[in-house]
Amino acid sequence: LPPSDADIGAELHGWARDLFPICRSLTGPGVRETLAYIKNILPDLQIHSVPTGTKAFDWTVPDEWTIRDAYIADEAGNRVVDFRKNNLHVVGYSEPVDRTLDLSELQGYLNSLPEKPDAIPYVFSYYKRRWGFCLSENHRKALKPGRYRAVIDSDLKPGVMNYADLVLPGRSEREVLLSTYICHPSMANNELSGPVITAALARMLSGMKRRFTYRIVFIPETLGSIVYLSRHLEEMKRKTIAGFVVTCAGDERAYSFLPSRLGNTFADRLARRVLRKNVKYTEYPFTENGSDERQYCSPLVNLPVVSIMRSKYDTYPEYHTSFDNLDLVTAGGLQGAFEIYRRCIAALESAKVYRAVVACEPQLGKRGLYPSLSTADTFAAVKNMMGVLAYADGAHDVADIADILETSVEECAAIAGKLAAAGLLEEVA
Amino acid sequence: LPPSDADIGAELHGWARDLFPICRSLTGPGVRETLAYIKNILPDLQIHSVPTGTKAFDWTVPDEWTIRDAYIADEAGNRVVDFRKNNLHVVGYSEPVDRTLDLSELQGYLNSLPEKPDAIPYVFSYYKRRWGFCLSENHRKALKPGRYRAVIDSDLKPGVMNYADLVLPGRSEREVLLSTYICHPSMANNELSGPVITAALARMLSGMKRRFTYRIVFIPETLGSIVYLSRHLEEMKRKTIAGFVVTCAGDERAYSFLPSRLGNTFADRLARRVLRKNVKYTEYPFTENGSDERQYCSPLVNLPVVSIMRSKYDTYPEYHTSFDNLDLVTAGGLQGAFEIYRRCIAALESAKVYRAVVACEPQLGKRGLYPSLSTADTFAAVKNMMGVLAYADGAHDVADIADILETSVEECAAIAGKLAAAGLLEEVA
Amino acid sequence: LPPSDADIGAELHGWARDLFPICRSLTGPGVRETLAYIKNILPDLQIHSVPTGTKAFDWTVPDEWTIRDAYIADEAGNRVVDFRKNNLHVVGYSEPVDRTLDLSELQGYLNSLPEKPDAIPYVFSYYKRRWGFCLSENHRKALKPGRYRAVIDSDLKPGVMNYADLVLPGRSEREVLLSTYICHPSMANNELSGPVITAALARMLSGMKRRFTYRIVFIPETLGSIVYLSRHLEEMKRKTIAGFVVTCAGDERAYSFLPSRLGNTFADRLARRVLRKNVKYTEYPFTENGSDERQYCSPLVNLPVVSIMRSKYDTYPEYHTSFDNLDLVTAGGLQGAFEIYRRCIAALESAKVYRAVVACEPQLGKRGLYPSLSTADTFAAVKNMMGVLAYADGAHDVADIADILETSVEECAAIAGKLAAAGLLEEVA
Repeated sequence: LPPSDADIGAELHGWARDLFPICRSLTGPGVRETLAYIKNILPDLQIHSVPTGTKAFDWTVPDEWTIRDAYIADEAGNRVVDFRKNNLHVVGYSEPVDRTLDLSELQGYLNSLPEKPDAIPYVFSYYKRRWGFCLSENHRKALKPGRYRAVIDSDLKPGVMNYADLVLPGRSEREVLLSTYICHPSMANNELSGPVITAALARMLSGMKRRFTYRIVFIPETLGSIVYLSRHLEEMKRKTIAGFVVTCAGDERAYSFLPSRLGNTFADRLARRVLRKNVKYTEYPFTENGSDERQYCSPLVNLPVVSIMRSKYDTYPEYHTSFDNLDLVTAGGLQGAFEIYRRCIAALESAKVYRAVVACEPQLGKRGLYPSLSTADTFAAVKNMMGVLAYADGAHDVADIADILETSVEECAAIAGKLAAAGLLEEVA
Repeated sequence: LPPSDADIGAELHGWARDLFPICRSLTGPGVRETLAYIKNILPDLQIHSVPTGTKAFDWTVPDEWTIRDAYIADEAGNRVVDFRKNNLHVVGYSEPVDRTLDLSELQGYLNSLPEKPDAIPYVFSYYKRRWGFCLSENHRKALKPGRYRAVIDSDLKPGVMNYADLVLPGRSEREVLLSTYICHPSMANNELSGPVITAALARMLSGMKRRFTYRIVFIPETLGSIVYLSRHLEEMKRKTIAGFVVTCAGDERAYSFLPSRLGNTFADRLARRVLRKNVKYTEYPFTENGSDERQYCSPLVNLPVVSIMRSKYDTYPEYHTSFDNLDLVTAGGLQGAFEIYRRCIAALESAKVYRAVVACEPQLGKRGLYPSLSTADTFAAVKNMMGVLAYADGAHDVADIADILETSVEECAAIAGKLAAAGLLEEVA
Repeated sequence: LPPSDADIGAELHGWARDLFPICRSLTGPGVRETLAYIKNILPDLQIHSVPTGTKAFDWTVPDEWTIRDAYIADEAGNRVVDFRKNNLHVVGYSEPVDRTLDLSELQGYLNSLPEKPDAIPYVFSYYKRRWGFCLSENHRKALKPGRYRAVIDSDLKPGVMNYADLVLPGRSEREVLLSTYICHPSMANNELSGPVITAALARMLSGMKRRFTYRIVFIPETLGSIVYLSRHLEEMKRKTIAGFVVTCAGDERAYSFLPSRLGNTFADRLARRVLRKNVKYTEYPFTENGSDERQYCSPLVNLPVVSIMRSKYDTYPEYHTSFDNLDLVTAGGLQGAFEIYRRCIAALESAKVYRAVVACEPQLGKRGLYPSLSTADTFAAVKNMMGVLAYADGAHDVADIADILETSVEECAAIAGKLAAAGLLEEVA
């Protein structure tokens, strides 16, 4: 595993800046543009197209949405609300419109947040045909009575839903899932933090020898994971040992953990261990879920999938508004989340199980592993080595031992490796 | 299940007032009179007679006791202690006597409580022949030296021990036990609260469609439950899923919980859940037991029986004295206990288990169950529905899910019913 | 089991005073002299000799060390450091030497503790040939420049390693292990407290009827237990139900508990129970181990061995120095530790399992075991008897029941014995 990269946060923030202006949605060119950008980082990424009308469990892929332009113009023709300034201004999946209406009638098509008067809300309507605009409450109040022209230059017609995946084989067929979504327009924590961290983790994993196989998935939220599961469910149920939904991982205010549905899988224990050792964090109950773990953990799917976040969706004031931007998401915020995920992968990769080959303690001194002169300080110096020997019983993995010894997985892995090299432990799995 | 009845407390207090004067004991006319009163409320109640000498496990039914009158008269013939004023004045199961004695000799037959100088204690001697009187310490001190005539007009001769039961069949053969005792003379919390609440619960159950079968038992304490178990043990071991000893449930000062012997049965979890959600309560260890759970939970019987009380026996100052009366037990106190038991029954009846029929979340929107316009508030509005879907896995019952979602069983049952009606869940059990 | 002996502490302290001057080490005459002293107390003790070169798992018994004299003399021939004053002055296992050197060169052979300037440290080098002296930092600083003669009159040559054991058969083949070490020179808490308490426990056990078999072992630490296990491993794995490493059990400042490796064996529960009921104590994690439990609990051995101590090794300032002496270890300190071990043995011996023979409660009254007159106080008087009846289910031993009833094992054992005598309980194991 490569060491921590102190500059990765800045690189990720750069990717997020590139991707920020794109108008993503459940379907459409914005998703493809985003996936193409990620494929530049991950050349082996496979991009898939699922036609409109495709069934997936209880769901059907809807028409594809293309948005080219949208605005509200006053009587003088000035754009008073302009999609080109912020793609949140149009309600997602708006049908095409070109109408002139009085302000009073126009109000029925406007969305704003009185309690957050400067924020443009994020609103969409995937499964019911509508049109509408979003704007800040103050902006809305400033609209003068009169007639306005509302124009949305969009298409809603049969096409495809896109997603991408990358399976990186390891020595073991057993899989680790990394899943993130690429379906929100210009928002940063609740969108771009996920794909940029996932892309960076995938790039790191591509360049290293892997114990486990990694399945990395970039999908539109909800329908994307449902379609993905409809195509890979049996395989994923058989192979997945741990999964992570990477989302809301870019600000600097918090670390958050959402456990799996039943809360005590290997993935839960591992993630909690990594979090506990490295940062302060809040654990939410699974009932506070809200992203693709809803599908991955649903009763008949029931994969061991958790989510490690910075400020969790639905808990921070900028959530689902124009304030969820690249001031909120920082290089430092991304760096921190990346590092936690990197450590989870390190913990997974190093979670080896060893077993003693000789009864009682081995004589470490004759192998140069124990001080020859015994003083009151002797044992402290070799305490962790003795601890690894004590718990290398074929039932505790290296991470479990690190937990018992209250030290790092890395140190225990290094000690166990040294003892195995000396012929004193054998690797079990 | 019928809704909460805001006036039931007053009705129960009326029943208790009717039953208060009757002199009940282990056997005798007072028990029959009490059971006859309850049969007026529950016409299908079965009243049973067990002859003196009947063996039940390690026990034998003793002679029947009939008490007609009892008093101590002074030399002038004035009744200075009079059973007609309070039936606690005679020691339970006193043999007949008519003797004139000096006060000093009479003292050996008197019982009082120096530490509670105004209370008449409750004393009985079922298995050893004795006679005696009970009176308050102050009353006793006021007796002047002189000669007194002690008269107890009682019989102790072969007869019967009575008890009653009522089995209300449900769709399932599995049974819920409600057990209460009818063997104490004029006391209210530690006697009448139990039978009046149990009778009202039985009346409510009689009038509703039942999922479970209910076995409702009115017995003399200890020997009654031993005899009852000697006749129904195998059946009750096979069928009982939860049981409740209804006792000490009429005052307003506390709620108390006595778990089953091992403390973690379905009945324990359900009762704790109902208590936790509705009231403040104290949980006692099983070792603080003292009523028929001693028999129901004994090692070779081992039924899942718990007890929900207001002020628990042996913890309140009026316990086993004349102060345990209908000032202490109130309409409000009875109302509260009835309501908790009603909610336990509601929890039992609604403890349904559902399982998803489709992988991943179903598409609720196309069934009108999910908002078509998605904003930041969307998920909150359907959060509990999503929670029910997440845990409807065939392993969590509706009450378990309510616990996880921190909402009411009723809400979860309603949601699960709606989802089942929409074909999205199937009922498992 | 004999009752507590209020004077045992003083007797143990006397034994410790006798043994204190002897220069023990891994091997040599000091060990034999110590074992001979203990054989005076325990005539059936078996003393064993293991030749140099004997293999035991990963280890080999080294040459035997004999130390006769050691000193550093100044130019005038005065002994400025003298083994005859304190046997800690010589590094354990020092090879023979007779050299005259400048103070500056001599410094390389001296050991002292700058942070404890008045203490002589305890230092040894079993497996690498060295020589050296130990002295206090202040003593060392007082040495004047000049030439010194360093003399160590010792042998290191093929011989034996000694240990001793005593197996006291009980009615059951199942064994309890008591293990202590006899390999440290003049130190008191971290040496003599162990053998003197173990000898006294063995003497007590010799004189009583035993339920279990007791295996009592006096060994040099580490290599001794490894050799012992190499000769008895299969038998001990099959038979041992609980074991104790008796060490650091003589001062008055603390009680300490080191659990077994996995922390939840019968021995752990029993020891915690005895400690909790009798004293305040600190529980350390197994990772703070440091004595023969390292071998007894190693993964392929995995015996249920714990350690009850007063001030645990490595936690008190006098540890491994000349200050660990018979001022630190007191009669009271030894008394307290002996008493805890005595109570552990009492708990073991009385840990019987009973089962009810009749359904429901037996009728105690007809056997004179229950008051015939029932008042409010009746149940309190027989509460523990009712508790024993409630939990005598073949799954809780008497000590478990005592735990549940929050009373002593002795009381529960007495009650259960009385109930068994009355034919109401049968002993299961």
